[in-house]
Amino acid sequence: MKPFVWLFLLAFASAPATAQDKPVTPSSVLEAAPATVWKDIPAEDLMVMTLADGSKVVAQLAPAFAPVHVANVRAFARAKWWDGAAIIRAQDNYVTQWGWPDEPEPKYPDTVKAEPPAEYEQPLSKSFRAVPYRDVYAAQVGHIDGWPVASDGKVQWLPHCYGMIGVARGLNPDTGSASQLYTLIGHAPRHLDRNIAMVGRVVSGMENLSTRARGTEALGFYKTAEERTKIASVTIASDLPSKERPALQYLDTRSPTFDAWVKARANRKDDFFAVPAGAVDICNALPPIRQKP
Amino acid sequence: MKPFVWLFLLAFASAPATAQDKPVTPSSVLEAAPATVWKDIPAEDLMVMTLADGSKVVAQLAPAFAPVHVANVRAFARAKWWDGAAIIRAQDNYVTQWGWPDEPEPKYPDTVKAEPPAEYEQPLSKSFRAVPYRDVYAAQVGHIDGWPVASDGKVQWLPHCYGMIGVARGLNPDTGSASQLYTLIGHAPRHLDRNIAMVGRVVSGMENLSTRARGTEALGFYKTAEERTKIASVTIASDLPSKERPALQYLDTRSPTFDAWVKARANRKDDFFAVPAGAVDICNALPPIRQKP
Repeated sequence: MKPFVWLFLLAFASAPATAQDKPVTPSSVLEAAPATVWKDIPAEDLMVMTLADGSKVVAQLAPAFAPVHVANVRAFARAKWWDGAAIIRAQDNYVTQWGWPDEPEPKYPDTVKAEPPAEYEQPLSKSFRAVPYRDVYAAQVGHIDGWPVASDGKVQWLPHCYGMIGVARGLNPDTGSASQLYTLIGHAPRHLDRNIAMVGRVVSGMENLSTRARGTEALGFYKTAEERTKIASVTIASDLPSKERPALQYLDTRSPTFDAWVKARANRKDDFFAVPAGAVDICNALPPIRQKP
Repeated sequence: MKPFVWLFLLAFASAPATAQDKPVTPSSVLEAAPATVWKDIPAEDLMVMTLADGSKVVAQLAPAFAPVHVANVRAFARAKWWDGAAIIRAQDNYVTQWGWPDEPEPKYPDTVKAEPPAEYEQPLSKSFRAVPYRDVYAAQVGHIDGWPVASDGKVQWLPHCYGMIGVARGLNPDTGSASQLYTLIGHAPRHLDRNIAMVGRVVSGMENLSTRARGTEALGFYKTAEERTKIASVTIASDLPSKERPALQYLDTRSPTFDAWVKARANRKDDFFAVPAGAVDICNALPPIRQKP
């Protein structure tokens, strides 16, 4: 029988590196990083959703990737259009989705563009920095300014990783207005890449979406109002009093610290690992987020 | 404003193919399959865990991949060793883990081998059938007798996909006894492949593990007994009265139906998809499971 402590899979967490002979781990890389590698997320890019049970979800918006859909997200929030809507769907190993459950939806604010263009991909940015690992779905993967990115060498798109947020839509050519959003709560369904507008990423409170009871209707939709958790409010952080604003930072994906962190993620060398992978999936290399100290 | 029905992402589910001009979808492939492609999972390979809240989780064991660890799982279950233990950990986008929370653990049954060999990989089986898509972590991926498999061409191993079950352990050379098990509840942490003994896969009731409140201690461990959901019983299905046994089947991974299903997963062609992926991640191609009709 083994001591209790072993069984706790302690080595899943990397111990701080306190001496030079300790292996470099993802944690030790972050602990050794200078403050300058952490970049503030603008308050205009943070969406705060408060649920009726008091729990909060904070999302970082991605205006550089889907400007019209993100403008709609801000417009819906600023019109308080989502206040009183609900989490309407939770399908295991797939998505949690929110919006209004019944048709017709409430009238859109005048500031919303009801039929946005298909912002599913963009010309490849010069800021793209590839990681040296292959991908199942894309020719290249890497990062741009704190975001995971996939590319075919000509265009780029945000991949469907855990916690990323997409715009629910119907059949083509509908692109969705952003009135209903979803986040990924299981293994990345990357076959949705390039088929949906991605508008951001959950950066705090993900567990308040991932642990929702799964809906029992087809596709995980909830059947009754009682099963749905209502949305108390959705607010853009810059509209909150400064004391209530979340203050979050992402690790600069152009920094040597980030490169070292990705390398350490791909090559685990602490006492737990017998065989380092030598690679890391783009969805296992989502840029770290922290509270601003 | 769009009709309500569109916003439900209806096309996430594939409509049954009712005419020859309908696109081939994963669902239509399964619906057209002969009964002979569904293989019974032996009752000796089904582990039934009943939680104190009445919910059930059914796992398929993988004796061909980790025979000693799986023999331990059966021995722990048959000695009722887990009855009264608990879910002790839920870490978001990572694992839900169960076993005894306190040390020392109860005395092991004599039938348990306390220090099993490192069954992390096996010589590559001649039954291995590769899928024609690349993988981030392994040189080849494919299937063997209903299981997803990764390989370097010489050895094989079960990958850490959503719902797969591994044996918690401490630092090397400890391999874990199987007294504590975990399942994956997020994006596949494939860097654990070849570093842990994998003993099976959740095939029913996964939501009863994936929706657990996340623990607030380090690594998602629960702090108090109140936070832990107790395990009422763990039983091998062959020890249950025949009427109470789950009867589950997996899609024969050597069948043309399975090949067509994988191909349809990689190349979505219904009215929802603008761009088919042309590939599928091994963790998005876990062999389908169904209730025996």
